[in-house]
Amino acid sequence: MQIGVIGLGRMGGNIARRLMDAGHDCVVHDVDKAATERLAGEGATAAGSVAELVASLTAPRAVWVMLPEGEITAKAVAALTEAMSPDDVVIDGGNSFYKDDIRRAGELKAKGLHYVDVGTSGGVWGRERGYCLMIGGETTVVERLDPIFKTLAPGAGEIPPTPGREARDPRVTQGYMHCGPAGSGHFVKMVHNGIEYGLMQAYAEGFDILRNKSSKDLPEDRRYEIDVADVAEVWRRGSVVSSWLLDLTANALAADPALDGFEGRVADSGEGRWTIEAAIEEAAPTPVLAAALFARFRSRQDQSFADRMLSAMRFQFGGHAEAPKGVGEIKKART
Amino acid sequence: MQIGVIGLGRMGGNIARRLMDAGHDCVVHDVDKAATERLAGEGATAAGSVAELVASLTAPRAVWVMLPEGEITAKAVAALTEAMSPDDVVIDGGNSFYKDDIRRAGELKAKGLHYVDVGTSGGVWGRERGYCLMIGGETTVVERLDPIFKTLAPGAGEIPPTPGREARDPRVTQGYMHCGPAGSGHFVKMVHNGIEYGLMQAYAEGFDILRNKSSKDLPEDRRYEIDVADVAEVWRRGSVVSSWLLDLTANALAADPALDGFEGRVADSGEGRWTIEAAIEEAAPTPVLAAALFARFRSRQDQSFADRMLSAMRFQFGGHAEAPKGVGEIKKART
Amino acid sequence: MQIGVIGLGRMGGNIARRLMDAGHDCVVHDVDKAATERLAGEGATAAGSVAELVASLTAPRAVWVMLPEGEITAKAVAALTEAMSPDDVVIDGGNSFYKDDIRRAGELKAKGLHYVDVGTSGGVWGRERGYCLMIGGETTVVERLDPIFKTLAPGAGEIPPTPGREARDPRVTQGYMHCGPAGSGHFVKMVHNGIEYGLMQAYAEGFDILRNKSSKDLPEDRRYEIDVADVAEVWRRGSVVSSWLLDLTANALAADPALDGFEGRVADSGEGRWTIEAAIEEAAPTPVLAAALFARFRSRQDQSFADRMLSAMRFQFGGHAEAPKGVGEIKKART
Amino acid sequence: MQIGVIGLGRMGGNIARRLMDAGHDCVVHDVDKAATERLAGEGATAAGSVAELVASLTAPRAVWVMLPEGEITAKAVAALTEAMSPDDVVIDGGNSFYKDDIRRAGELKAKGLHYVDVGTSGGVWGRERGYCLMIGGETTVVERLDPIFKTLAPGAGEIPPTPGREARDPRVTQGYMHCGPAGSGHFVKMVHNGIEYGLMQAYAEGFDILRNKSSKDLPEDRRYEIDVADVAEVWRRGSVVSSWLLDLTANALAADPALDGFEGRVADSGEGRWTIEAAIEEAAPTPVLAAALFARFRSRQDQSFADRMLSAMRFQFGGHAEAPKGVGEIKKART
Repeated sequence: MQIGVIGLGRMGGNIARRLMDAGHDCVVHDVDKAATERLAGEGATAAGSVAELVASLTAPRAVWVMLPEGEITAKAVAALTEAMSPDDVVIDGGNSFYKDDIRRAGELKAKGLHYVDVGTSGGVWGRERGYCLMIGGETTVVERLDPIFKTLAPGAGEIPPTPGREARDPRVTQGYMHCGPAGSGHFVKMVHNGIEYGLMQAYAEGFDILRNKSSKDLPEDRRYEIDVADVAEVWRRGSVVSSWLLDLTANALAADPALDGFEGRVADSGEGRWTIEAAIEEAAPTPVLAAALFARFRSRQDQSFADRMLSAMRFQFGGHAEAPKGVGEIKKART
Repeated sequence: MQIGVIGLGRMGGNIARRLMDAGHDCVVHDVDKAATERLAGEGATAAGSVAELVASLTAPRAVWVMLPEGEITAKAVAALTEAMSPDDVVIDGGNSFYKDDIRRAGELKAKGLHYVDVGTSGGVWGRERGYCLMIGGETTVVERLDPIFKTLAPGAGEIPPTPGREARDPRVTQGYMHCGPAGSGHFVKMVHNGIEYGLMQAYAEGFDILRNKSSKDLPEDRRYEIDVADVAEVWRRGSVVSSWLLDLTANALAADPALDGFEGRVADSGEGRWTIEAAIEEAAPTPVLAAALFARFRSRQDQSFADRMLSAMRFQFGGHAEAPKGVGEIKKART
Repeated sequence: MQIGVIGLGRMGGNIARRLMDAGHDCVVHDVDKAATERLAGEGATAAGSVAELVASLTAPRAVWVMLPEGEITAKAVAALTEAMSPDDVVIDGGNSFYKDDIRRAGELKAKGLHYVDVGTSGGVWGRERGYCLMIGGETTVVERLDPIFKTLAPGAGEIPPTPGREARDPRVTQGYMHCGPAGSGHFVKMVHNGIEYGLMQAYAEGFDILRNKSSKDLPEDRRYEIDVADVAEVWRRGSVVSSWLLDLTANALAADPALDGFEGRVADSGEGRWTIEAAIEEAAPTPVLAAALFARFRSRQDQSFADRMLSAMRFQFGGHAEAPKGVGEIKKART
Repeated sequence: MQIGVIGLGRMGGNIARRLMDAGHDCVVHDVDKAATERLAGEGATAAGSVAELVASLTAPRAVWVMLPEGEITAKAVAALTEAMSPDDVVIDGGNSFYKDDIRRAGELKAKGLHYVDVGTSGGVWGRERGYCLMIGGETTVVERLDPIFKTLAPGAGEIPPTPGREARDPRVTQGYMHCGPAGSGHFVKMVHNGIEYGLMQAYAEGFDILRNKSSKDLPEDRRYEIDVADVAEVWRRGSVVSSWLLDLTANALAADPALDGFEGRVADSGEGRWTIEAAIEEAAPTPVLAAALFARFRSRQDQSFADRMLSAMRFQFGGHAEAPKGVGEIKKART
């Protein structure tokens, strides 16, 4: 079917390509003209503006917005709202906050438009592997867009079926799910990313323990030289911790076992933060997800005011000096 | 090749079966006669005691001990040490503490015996899927046992190869790894289980947020009814959080979406604890792994002395009463 | 000076009393007539409604609102706004969210009114000890209210002066502080309560360790019978952990060393939650404050869906049964 | 009474001085001759070696060892054991591991000697304020040493008595406590320090939030310039979070509000670590105490291998670049 795509970055561009590969008809727009032209060279219809894109589509239209969440997405949705006609659909495939979705869906409804939020997981691998889609919105509209979702989703693949699912929604085993009304798609995606942070941090801490085990600060008879690249690889087979993130870790460590190409200042996006806020709203204890978020915050700081305050207190009560730079202070353990 | 197996529970029994399926010759023993006889009925040679098992094997012997760690394993190793002759090998395939391995390896060496520690992951699925093996011990002995390890390991399977591993140890891509000297196999397995706790807790917290989102304690316009069984299933395809643990979660939720068959008192084994102790020895911050361990401790308690102490302090300074039973106290959030 | 007080609960009633004890003239109102009359019996002027209270005060008026944060406070402020005349002041002495303060201050300003937010710490002890006041609002208005703040604050007392403060704001050493513009008083109070949760949880965990040390689940030679009431008392003198919260803990434990009078379902108010949200806005890692909040959430639950999910996964991969009820599973430690 | 003191550093020197001030007779030794002579100049009897110190004391002897825990203390205790005669007492006033105490007490008992472990809190302020003492050992021996403990302890002071303690051990309200048999004094002191870490981190995180609130990374209408030195001071009076650590914090901030004199690499001693290990032995969840310990570990690292691993995974799945140096990434919050 015909679809507009706004935002042709790493994610949006590949989404358009995966759709076109399957025979869908894409009208595309990006503020970066080169990006628009690149897609046009691959078969898409280029549009110089949001208004032009809307004009190029046949009603009822569907436009997939794939932009950074926040003001940029808000502006694009506003421009679409302006240009569209009743029964058209705006699909926000980015990482918007689900409460923004609820508000926006209401605003669009007031103008006769539809709003569908799609949490899209898959990263740079999505074009090839397909995207896992978590969809929020009105049932009839989500059904109208089914050809799009079916194409973008990974399909059942060779993943073994789960017993007992026979009577359940078959779209789910194709890799896309209608989660509920507006916002629910991004809510599920938000929690997905919160979990992602927790999983990543669990691996990171474990590999840190393995690697530190060779530290010269440990007594000599307490050290092992463990090949962490091999560990990541061996765990891919038959172990309880095998996962796609572990596959990627094995890739990274095989290429650079010390990971010297990275500095370790880890960004975080809104979803990890909103997940904790959602947990707090629900009075749900989420120590692991919160700890994973804080580890990212901490990774971007050098010693903080909080750290200096600890040193100041220790100096005040005990006359203690700070640990000298570069001393990990691994103590001779006694057991 | 010929091998003895002591301990024929869920793990040991299937290890013997997988070995026999591949043509290895197993002499087996369990304190539970019925277990020994069951395996004998499947082709193994039954032994009524450790001494009898040793006597039934041709030197140099290899005996796989698959017993609960601690005293039970210690007793079996002692009995083997007593009965074996120089150059024989004891393989501890259980979950022993790696410092016990180091000590034991030294004791056996003094008697001319060899000790190999094998961290074995795979659970009840191992017979069919194979076991991921993390091996510690002397190189020549580990090589001598290669046919055993190769059989037990999952093999390369259909898992996509990791680029850049061409020149690396090929055993690793078959699912078994010689990690280093005595204790290193169990050290790597220990960290594996520490990570496992973290991964499990990350999923558990995320699904808890999803499920609580339908709580009647939330304002009505803040609720979603999210089908958590479908979420687990859809994430198996194309998402960043896909993993074997997620596959199992999808199984469990498809069968019983409310998980009412479980009470939620979660056991922990030594490895999760030792992982934190190892991290502390290394002065390595592991907030996620520790939080996951503490969540298990907490799950087995009702309100604790610590909780009552908080209530007591609140009453002291503010005259505050405790939260009444059954009130989750989800607050009307304001955003 | 003359002041109105709305809300005569544990906090508001004592605030009025402390003001009257110092000769201030209080006009009071509470929806509970009995509370209003009780204060009238102690020298206050009773008002049957907010409008009546405003009418009884001489302009420019000052009214202290001491009500539960949220809708109840909002309603009272709205009623005041309606009844007041330009240059009157609303003081919110409760635990409102600082972003609500900012909004309200703007709304009142548009009508020529002033808004002052006061974080008030001291609990049931405040009437006697005085209240620590954290004040946000316009400088001239805060200065106009100085007689009120000075009376409510504890004063310098016998607390040893801090060297180097000679040139600093003398109000601070009297126990009240003008923190900044609207909202800043409640912001500082919010963080105060966040810290309070952390301190309380630190003590609670420590005493839990002391008490568990006598558990029959520990090997006999690992147990101590430690008198926790005595520990709380001895730490009050000369130790690094002495504090007012510890004084209160000693009180509670002297009266009931097992704290059997409490069930351990610990409530939390908005401030602990907003503290974490503020930290997240600032990308500031606050693992201890978050863990303390989550411990309260957890104390109000029995086994959670998250816990059951861990059990379900363990059953799936390992066939593991849950820990039987009442088993703490203290393992025989090995060191 | 007469007592030997070995180890004349910050703690040991002041302990000898406080004892001499009260008329006790001290024989002192330190490997640093200058330290020994300094004390001799203040009235102590100097001893050139442990053996000489023992020879200078009248039996039954009591010797207070105040040395860094671990090998140094072990060596001094061994030298004392060698030189002493039956019924003499070794007092370990340092921060030894309680399991070492248990072992040592057994070894000394075999030679007819006594061993008393004393957890000593008070830091550089102890000479003036007195030391809070947590004592483990045989009842008769602890009673024999009572004059020493009574002198070192702070006494009741002006601290308000706790209601309900009338019938309890009066030593406790003087600031010293006989906690139980060998090791129990250090066990209680260990938990004390574990709590201390938690309290310190709670304050540090809270002040970090206050200080970050002025960050230019926050939207302008979300900032406050809060004087953190004034906040620490105002909370000393009447607030729930007042404590000795807060007094010290106020000192430090009054002298240097930005704490620029500190780098923030925070050392930790054994007790914080052993506290977590004790909690793990007891299966007691201690998320706050563990998080506080991990924050210290983290403060001494720059970006860790764990951090780089997170970056590597993010690059693998999303092509994400790392956060540029110096970017705190405070997001524009939306509420």
